[in-house]
Amino acid sequence: MKKLAVVALGGNALLRGDEHGTIEEQEKNTTETLENLVFLIKDGYDLIITHGNGPQVGNILLRNDAGKELYDIAPMPLDICVADSQGGIGYMIERMIRNVLNKYGIKKNVITMVTMVETDPKDPAFHNPTKRIGKIYMGEEAKKLEKQKGWVFKPTPKVKGGCRRVVPSPKPKDIINKETIETLTRNGNIVIASGGGGIPIYYDENSDVRTMDAVIDKDMASSLLAVNVKADELYILTDVPFIYKNFGTPEQEKLEFLDYNDTLKYLEAGTFADGTMAPKIEACLHFVKNGGTKSVITEATKLEDRSYGSKITMEYDY
Amino acid sequence: MKKLAVVALGGNALLRGDEHGTIEEQEKNTTETLENLVFLIKDGYDLIITHGNGPQVGNILLRNDAGKELYDIAPMPLDICVADSQGGIGYMIERMIRNVLNKYGIKKNVITMVTMVETDPKDPAFHNPTKRIGKIYMGEEAKKLEKQKGWVFKPTPKVKGGCRRVVPSPKPKDIINKETIETLTRNGNIVIASGGGGIPIYYDENSDVRTMDAVIDKDMASSLLAVNVKADELYILTDVPFIYKNFGTPEQEKLEFLDYNDTLKYLEAGTFADGTMAPKIEACLHFVKNGGTKSVITEATKLEDRSYGSKITMEYDY
Repeated sequence: MKKLAVVALGGNALLRGDEHGTIEEQEKNTTETLENLVFLIKDGYDLIITHGNGPQVGNILLRNDAGKELYDIAPMPLDICVADSQGGIGYMIERMIRNVLNKYGIKKNVITMVTMVETDPKDPAFHNPTKRIGKIYMGEEAKKLEKQKGWVFKPTPKVKGGCRRVVPSPKPKDIINKETIETLTRNGNIVIASGGGGIPIYYDENSDVRTMDAVIDKDMASSLLAVNVKADELYILTDVPFIYKNFGTPEQEKLEFLDYNDTLKYLEAGTFADGTMAPKIEACLHFVKNGGTKSVITEATKLEDRSYGSKITMEYDY
Repeated sequence: MKKLAVVALGGNALLRGDEHGTIEEQEKNTTETLENLVFLIKDGYDLIITHGNGPQVGNILLRNDAGKELYDIAPMPLDICVADSQGGIGYMIERMIRNVLNKYGIKKNVITMVTMVETDPKDPAFHNPTKRIGKIYMGEEAKKLEKQKGWVFKPTPKVKGGCRRVVPSPKPKDIINKETIETLTRNGNIVIASGGGGIPIYYDENSDVRTMDAVIDKDMASSLLAVNVKADELYILTDVPFIYKNFGTPEQEKLEFLDYNDTLKYLEAGTFADGTMAPKIEACLHFVKNGGTKSVITEATKLEDRSYGSKITMEYDY
């Protein structure tokens, strides 16, 4: 059987913070990122692509807000906004990768699936919303929305007196349609799935599918999917080439090869000060602990150079 | 082999014109519509669901406009807006149908696929844009956009001096991933695909996948998909229970059973005065002419009653 890799594209791999976010910019960034996956395909890997949606769903939320204000259009809840972003981003990636495959003369089909991800309604995260979404509100407006809709707000360091809505970030429990994703991938298709961490759902006491305002971490969802489909390797593409100990301090140290126990020790000691890196590392550990051979964290544009990137395995002979 | 039906849900089956379009309204309408498909599933049909996106993508376009105006967010082009609507509507239908299946104790899986539809760049429709999209602009603003973006405008009867952008509505030439849609359906999944007529693409001279601002008729795309997957029956669910000759006149006559030649004659004579009905009938004719057993046009909520609806077959023994 061919090796199977799950590649998680970070928000920055598609839409960069210093850009305006036009579709031309997004398509260019996406193509550059996807060019780096060609070596995996040429090496005969089966491939699943997952992706973040932070900047895009942020824009969709703001547009919902603006549409309500200017045209009185009913705003959509977060689950629909995430689903919208899966459609738009998934299609963009599908079209760009078809053109990258065409450029390299590789015959491979591509399929984009809308993906729900099950959460546990008893997840403690539901009592501790942490994930900031949507626009910055000032005091009075936020208080009104707290009352009207039961939203929870936290101050933002970006604007004095401003705050942003926070929603829970529950753990992914199951990837809906994981079997289909696996079969389609094993049949030779590149499958794009679980965008933005998936649309969060849960089953109620009648086994009905319910949703809620929440955001699932896309790397944790990608790791769970990778375990579910029995992938060999998990690639998390972000905006730094390596994991570092004591990042941004004089003691900064590049970590190229890591094993499970060392990484866990570092993680628990708070060595990875950066709040965005810890969940990526947790996702990598979850994967190698549950059967994955290797997790890699690196920059999207550096993937082709095999010496690049931090590789996490269960055991490593230093 | 089981019978296979393609069911095309009209915009009204999901979001009604006299409603505000909240998600609660859309979910309720969708559930009511989907309840009417239970008899097909109980009868053992394999099922593909397609859907319109008119009101939803209209709202997405307006939100893009409002987001640009209020927050200077880069607006997305029409292809991304259609893809967004496939994600959001497809997910909503998937969640609602899972709950309908649960209610009736039917074990069946559901999959939503983002779908591109190929068009012919030489389609004469590209020289004659007819499909109104987006908001109403007044004279000066429209002229500016004509110059800036090359958009084409036509006056709207809704507001004096107002006009709306028109885009081409090319014929669908091929449904991308039709084989996968067929296989997944034949394996027992209900597949939701080709939403909003599909995201329009074409292949350029280098076989790269390009897109353009255009809208494909959802009934024509559904008919092509139905032919491609060798479906037995095509159901087009709309807001009238039957096709009528001379609709809205004293000579109005219900047509319950029609064969290909009679229907074509009526169509060519302009008997179906209503501009929205003619493309539905063309879609039905295309299907029965290319191997389909039966096309049905009826109201979403009346499907369960078999005596309802206009049935078009290749030949009918009157």
